[in-house]
Amino acid sequence: SVNPDLASERRTASFSVEKLTVQLDGGAEQTRIRRAVVEAIESDPVFSRENQYFQSQNERYEAAVRKAVHLQTKMHEMRWTENGPELKYIYSRALAGDVAFLIHRVFMRCISLLGSDKQIAKWIPPATQYQLIGSYAQTELGHGTYLRGLETTAVFDITTQEFILNTPKISAMKWWPGDMGRSATHAVVFAQLYVHGQCYGVHPFILQIRSLQDHSLCPGITAGDIGPKMNFEHIDNGYLMLQNVRVPRENMLNKFCEVQPDGTYIKRGTEKINYFTMTTVRISLISDEVILPLMKACTIAIRYSAVRRQSKLKPGEEEAKILDYQTQQEKLLPQLAAAYAFHFINKYLQELLDTGYREIQTKNFDNLPELHAFSSGFKAMATQYCTSAVEICLRACGGHGYSLLSGLPSLYTKILASCIYEGENTILLLQTARFLIKCFSAAGAGQPVPPSVTYLSAVKAGKCPAKNKLDFLSPVIYTEAYQHAAVRLVSSTAAKLQDLIQSGVKKHEAWNQCSVQLAQAAKAHCHYLTVKNFAETVEKLETEAGIQKIMKHLCDLFALHGIFSNTGVFLHDGYISGAQMDMVTASYLDLLAVIRKDAVPLVDAFDFTDKSLNSALGSYDGQVYQRLYEWAQKSPTNTQTNPAYERYLKPLLHNTLSKL
Amino acid sequence: SVNPDLASERRTASFSVEKLTVQLDGGAEQTRIRRAVVEAIESDPVFSRENQYFQSQNERYEAAVRKAVHLQTKMHEMRWTENGPELKYIYSRALAGDVAFLIHRVFMRCISLLGSDKQIAKWIPPATQYQLIGSYAQTELGHGTYLRGLETTAVFDITTQEFILNTPKISAMKWWPGDMGRSATHAVVFAQLYVHGQCYGVHPFILQIRSLQDHSLCPGITAGDIGPKMNFEHIDNGYLMLQNVRVPRENMLNKFCEVQPDGTYIKRGTEKINYFTMTTVRISLISDEVILPLMKACTIAIRYSAVRRQSKLKPGEEEAKILDYQTQQEKLLPQLAAAYAFHFINKYLQELLDTGYREIQTKNFDNLPELHAFSSGFKAMATQYCTSAVEICLRACGGHGYSLLSGLPSLYTKILASCIYEGENTILLLQTARFLIKCFSAAGAGQPVPPSVTYLSAVKAGKCPAKNKLDFLSPVIYTEAYQHAAVRLVSSTAAKLQDLIQSGVKKHEAWNQCSVQLAQAAKAHCHYLTVKNFAETVEKLETEAGIQKIMKHLCDLFALHGIFSNTGVFLHDGYISGAQMDMVTASYLDLLAVIRKDAVPLVDAFDFTDKSLNSALGSYDGQVYQRLYEWAQKSPTNTQTNPAYERYLKPLLHNTLSKL
Repeated sequence: SVNPDLASERRTASFSVEKLTVQLDGGAEQTRIRRAVVEAIESDPVFSRENQYFQSQNERYEAAVRKAVHLQTKMHEMRWTENGPELKYIYSRALAGDVAFLIHRVFMRCISLLGSDKQIAKWIPPATQYQLIGSYAQTELGHGTYLRGLETTAVFDITTQEFILNTPKISAMKWWPGDMGRSATHAVVFAQLYVHGQCYGVHPFILQIRSLQDHSLCPGITAGDIGPKMNFEHIDNGYLMLQNVRVPRENMLNKFCEVQPDGTYIKRGTEKINYFTMTTVRISLISDEVILPLMKACTIAIRYSAVRRQSKLKPGEEEAKILDYQTQQEKLLPQLAAAYAFHFINKYLQELLDTGYREIQTKNFDNLPELHAFSSGFKAMATQYCTSAVEICLRACGGHGYSLLSGLPSLYTKILASCIYEGENTILLLQTARFLIKCFSAAGAGQPVPPSVTYLSAVKAGKCPAKNKLDFLSPVIYTEAYQHAAVRLVSSTAAKLQDLIQSGVKKHEAWNQCSVQLAQAAKAHCHYLTVKNFAETVEKLETEAGIQKIMKHLCDLFALHGIFSNTGVFLHDGYISGAQMDMVTASYLDLLAVIRKDAVPLVDAFDFTDKSLNSALGSYDGQVYQRLYEWAQKSPTNTQTNPAYERYLKPLLHNTLSKL
Repeated sequence: SVNPDLASERRTASFSVEKLTVQLDGGAEQTRIRRAVVEAIESDPVFSRENQYFQSQNERYEAAVRKAVHLQTKMHEMRWTENGPELKYIYSRALAGDVAFLIHRVFMRCISLLGSDKQIAKWIPPATQYQLIGSYAQTELGHGTYLRGLETTAVFDITTQEFILNTPKISAMKWWPGDMGRSATHAVVFAQLYVHGQCYGVHPFILQIRSLQDHSLCPGITAGDIGPKMNFEHIDNGYLMLQNVRVPRENMLNKFCEVQPDGTYIKRGTEKINYFTMTTVRISLISDEVILPLMKACTIAIRYSAVRRQSKLKPGEEEAKILDYQTQQEKLLPQLAAAYAFHFINKYLQELLDTGYREIQTKNFDNLPELHAFSSGFKAMATQYCTSAVEICLRACGGHGYSLLSGLPSLYTKILASCIYEGENTILLLQTARFLIKCFSAAGAGQPVPPSVTYLSAVKAGKCPAKNKLDFLSPVIYTEAYQHAAVRLVSSTAAKLQDLIQSGVKKHEAWNQCSVQLAQAAKAHCHYLTVKNFAETVEKLETEAGIQKIMKHLCDLFALHGIFSNTGVFLHDGYISGAQMDMVTASYLDLLAVIRKDAVPLVDAFDFTDKSLNSALGSYDGQVYQRLYEWAQKSPTNTQTNPAYERYLKPLLHNTLSKL
């Protein structure tokens, strides 16, 4: 039975939850497919995550391998294919990434993208069948973000037509690659290519690392698991050391460049293409590893907050739902709005990427810089924002949020990794900033700039025209405020950079001295685009009046929360005055009370099953205390005996028998 | 051998590290004692934390019990006593809290504080010898922060002169008490006292929950472990359900109140005293569980950042230390400054508490409200600030920071709990705010107010007088800016509250509508006091010129970082202008480069041993890559066999033998 406190929240929804779900999915057919996939996976006990919070790293890994292997059978049985519409729901929605051989998929994607047709024909079919397991070995102990500094070497031996791969020192050891520690038989290894003593930079090579017969390490290979991490216990992140490991010439991925038998190096595209795999991975992870987890965290925290009663709002009355406290609303509702905001902009980015991918297939690399700049900055902004958001959800659930059984700790420790992997966020923001500074000066010189940054040339002076708090519910008003702030930060940092250089500071040093502000400018740019996109999305929802209305509230909340939380950015040059900022605050706080009424339906619309949330606090029925108690019973701390008593306590406690 | 990159950092220290260490300890004798304690504990293998990152919850618990029991022997052997100067170093510095029966100590403290002399004489001696293990059972499944809402009942049965304790419903189950899940034989249980059908509110009762003979649960008791958490695997946080459990009348702690044989209820003090245990626990945890962990995180992240080289600052040169990037400095150095700031204000608070404690012994409760308000707000501010700071340190170490072997994840997951336990932070801030609003209106009416809030009555109009960036290195300038901001936030929120009430909104509803801003005001008050105290501390360091100079830089950095990160608070009413804010930014960024030179000596001064840091990244010698590799070898993922291969992979991989 549903907790009455939660049931009552659902009776008053101002919109159709089902319609919103379909809207988020992008159509009724998508919703149908997604639900069918989730149902099929969740009804299969092999895929159960029921004991996840009680398992050791080794147990998690074994379960994940079992799931990955079983998934093949399942896909065959369900007639799901790698190119089918089901795929995007299998790994993210249904399995929540809790499965092995995800990096094996990156290995395959990398070969498909950078390999010749011949290489693809050789490696992809057996890899698809798990007849070999691949890893993607790029990061080293000493180098993660600065790929040009990778130290692994691949020297071409013209006499044997082989590359000789080596790990010249400990910092050159590959470190972190998933599926490498205990599973992989092969890997794409990134190494500095040397031919005739000349270095041609980092290139990808296919290497066998473990025997297909008995899984023992191949000659010259040292490999293992890097040990415990904050999360990803199910993934065997590994290390790899190479000692004179030889691979045939054909094992360098050679769609875009090649070493010919005589040692001639041929390039068939831009070297930036080598990093395109990272760009695609970066964008696909945002939806699965960043936005979905935030939606889950919001679902858990908001449902719990509608059930948890604590203290009294009004003397003499019963204790109030914590969601009725303004401070709790101010913690959770902006995160809910952010989940929607990032969902919409991610859709937009996904479309840009699809276009870019098609262009690259035709060897058109023109849009790579903008795509790279936008995806970098957005990855940094979205991961940072959503990680904080999940942490806020966790903290907002008090002690019970801290229990693994709430589901929130693992959501947090997992999303946190997204700030680090696939490009460290600060580095990414600075790459976006470099693009912005370049475009800003190009725009200043009257040159054409890509569409996403044309606003930089349209600098308008003036002040925010809002006259009362309701004016701040106008998308034009707040979008322009964000635009103004972004332009101001980009232009003032560009000016500082210019000043430093003109005063004699060397260019790279000047860049470093501006880097804190450059990162801020990049963030402001991405924040602006996210707000703008949300506002535009709301406009397009005119066919669904009920949904459009509540989405408009969320868009307003997302925008005003951003101003309220960064008031200085808008106050600095007086674009928004102190008095106007008080209006922003008033409108922002008013919105909390408005959206609070629909908070539960708004998370219900994310349409997570209880199994997928895997949370004692977040289930649809709201029976949180009962479930916490039931789940705790299953913990090994209760089901296993307590050797500490026999060994250490019994001798002490026995002394007191006569005394108390 | 020490990594040359780290050695070079130490050669250029602008001050004596040893002198700073002694200064932080409060004297050379303290330093000597601390080092002796740490040395004695760390040289004893029973206390080793070497395998901590590889252990399961059950293994951690068993090791913690073993340590607790062994500690008794050790203390006896070393002639350390409960009242000796060594005690404060044993649990925090030497054991890092990784030991069982910490809540047993709260159990004892509670009895000592709230029990009569007779009760103390009966319970404390056997508890000290671990002849019984106690827990402190306050929090329930349904109630944490709102203690008056606790649902456990204790009904006085006049015929048998007993209290009958019950858990009337599932939400009334005690949940979270440490040492309860698997260890405790006794507990102080907080329950609503009923005599003759009248409720007298929450009172503490001593209860036996497990047999001293065989450790089985006593009749009417259901108890167990609440399962996995984000950290504290070594603590058996438990649950407890009571069914008609009877305890004699003497088992209610009765120093301040008592039920006489005829049922007469007598009160000998304020009921607030019942919460004083929480106040003392709250303050003692700040030093051990909040400031020390932040100091450790800074040590790890800063040493690593001086060793890690990545990318080039200047084309053609070798790769730069990441600590030389402005963005990295801006992440880490403010956290270092915060560690010092909180260390100093915590010392001050500790002194206030000692005074308060002496007064309570003489039944003088006058200063309780101020002590409660200050300790609440400061607990909230310090835990929140330091938790973010540790997270920043973790993220600043990139992928390797995410490995448990870095030590940072466990520091983070542990300090995060401090935001929740011993008073949820938002609730605490609102308690401080209530005090501030009360004092503000008292001050306005010309009534006397406690010393920490007299500034509220001295509201000065006007603007910040700074004329150039150097002016912002004046403590008078920035302390006044903080003061101004705190006064503005308190007074504007008081005005809003007043307006709402005058416009007819009910008082409690008006309070709720202001609560987001009230919490902000409380934070601003605590931030101001912390800055002010840091500046005053620096002044008193005049006997140590070298130390005073670097501490002055840190104080400036802490203050300017606070302004830089909250520009809107200072810009809002124009107290600081946009042009002045640019000066703040310039001075702030300049300071980073200044303090960067001493960053490593400044963390060396915290004087942590390698064993106490337990970090592959943070050791004194800076051999990070070697150590990561060595430690990873010991992981169970490498030392145990891989059943997943035999079970799931072998059948698949064997298929390919002939093909590749």
